[in-house]
Amino acid sequence: MQVIITINKKPGVLDPEAQAVKQSLFSLGFDDLENVTMGKQITLFIETDDQERAKYRAAKMCEALLANAVIEEYKIQVNELS
Amino acid sequence: MQVIITINKKPGVLDPEAQAVKQSLFSLGFDDLENVTMGKQITLFIETDDQERAKYRAAKMCEALLANAVIEEYKIQVNELS
Repeated sequence: MQVIITINKKPGVLDPEAQAVKQSLFSLGFDDLENVTMGKQITLFIETDDQERAKYRAAKMCEALLANAVIEEYKIQVNELS
Repeated sequence: MQVIITINKKPGVLDPEAQAVKQSLFSLGFDDLENVTMGKQITLFIETDDQERAKYRAAKMCEALLANAVIEEYKIQVNELS
């Protein structure tokens, strides 16, 4: 089961990396951008046929290691790929 | 127009960050994971109503700044959000 975990800063949390990207793009001529955010995407395969179980385990991984629940939020997407 | 850019290492390129994540998860008891990859996701809004133009501009941003074409590949997804 393929699991795609996307981790982004919560709204309102300062995101200096995204600001730097926005400014760099601005100086390259991309001056009509708004709401630039930057996150992490982790893709992995879990050996199970149970979609709910894959999602549950991915949430556990986020809480234990991948995401910082104070400032980050995560989304989990499960695909039926083997 | 909302644009979501996902940048991942090309297959075969060494990804030490993903390896570290995989090992950390393993030591936390998640021992049935495979093919862990780690990428960046950049979300931004471009002021245009033209989906093709938004996609074209996002590709230009990737080539100019966001992605390293030698070792990374990018995917662009355009959504009709204002």
